Amino acid sequence: MSSTRDIDALIEMMAKLPGLGPRSARRAVLHLIRKRALLLSPLADLMQEVAATARECINCGNIGTSDICDICAAEKRANGELCVVEDVADLWAMERAGGFKGRYHVLGGTLSALDAIGPEDLRIPKLIDRVSSEGITEVILALNATVDGQTTAHYIADQLENRVRLTSLAQGVPIGGELDYLDDGTISAALKARKDI
Amino acid sequence: MSSTRDIDALIEMMAKLPGLGPRSARRAVLHLIRKRALLLSPLADLMQEVAATARECINCGNIGTSDICDICAAEKRANGELCVVEDVADLWAMERAGGFKGRYHVLGGTLSALDAIGPEDLRIPKLIDRVSSEGITEVILALNATVDGQTTAHYIADQLENRVRLTSLAQGVPIGGELDYLDDGTISAALKARKDI
Ligand SMILES: [Zn+2]
Ligand SMILES: [Zn+2]
Repeated sequence: MSSTRDIDALIEMMAKLPGLGPRSARRAVLHLIRKRALLLSPLADLMQEVAATARECINCGNIGTSDICDICAAEKRANGELCVVEDVADLWAMERAGGFKGRYHVLGGTLSALDAIGPEDLRIPKLIDRVSSEGITEVILALNATVDGQTTAHYIADQLENRVRLTSLAQGVPIGGELDYLDDGTISAALKARKDI
Repeated sequence: MSSTRDIDALIEMMAKLPGLGPRSARRAVLHLIRKRALLLSPLADLMQEVAATARECINCGNIGTSDICDICAAEKRANGELCVVEDVADLWAMERAGGFKGRYHVLGGTLSALDAIGPEDLRIPKLIDRVSSEGITEVILALNATVDGQTTAHYIADQLENRVRLTSLAQGVPIGGELDYLDDGTISAALKARKDI
């Protein structure tokens, strides 16, 4: 490479981001360098700002800029419905789809015997707490239709049985499909047609 | 979106980079936020550093961190060979491929009647200068095999005719390339340029 060390290092870091590879990282960095005053410098400032302020909500695991996220802080979203998702990306996908007016609980993964991930490694104890403390009447298990996702959903359903209405997203979520890959229409249709477990 | 304004703005900026879209930008930003101390903050620092130091070589148009890039500064690369490319990405690709020991000249685009891009909008006058001032003996026109790329190559060849040896990259089937995956133009060019075994 003829470029100097910082530029090479920048390409290398960008290439490791999910969704990018060496080729798209090089193209992105060239683009950023060409527009360095307009684009690269503001992007760096914004990243520094986000690095300093972004944090996980201590209640639900969503990402925001305060200890309690906007959704948990919004009184009108305390409607008794709690949507359980694996990941913040899934929460964002649900919010983009619209239609859900309650709150979320981000597990931060799924149970996995293979990777030795148990309930304590996820936000499952906190979920059980919230069901009581926030007066939850319905828990919507919006987990991915994968083996681990469904194992996790069953585990949570067992824990909460007879305490709360338990539902899952309706058909429309394809087998093996991850929420974050779905179009907004599919997600809102599945939410509307949700069923008791 | 439930995330706050800076996070949304960061996703939006990342989504505009070549090779990324909204979905990969969201995934990249989530990944960066999760590893904000290890990844996001160092990446922001590096971007700020590159934004402050990166510049185009005033001689060849390559990107580096000084007014004269490493290749133009290297005396041993003054071997009389000058490789003309459209873009810095092409220069980087040539350097990764290895084998070329001379210098480069980055045009910064191609002539285009449609977009009203003439010789003065590219680094063509500078190229003509360099051929004399750097004692160039061979100009390799490594332009893309597009209509505009080839128009530009012909224009430059006209300007430099009888002053220097003019060559272009051989066209053919790439090493390991399967015919079925190649465009027709490449195949017919390779057929026309066929050689006895
Ligand atoms: Zn929250
Ligand atoms: Zn140079």
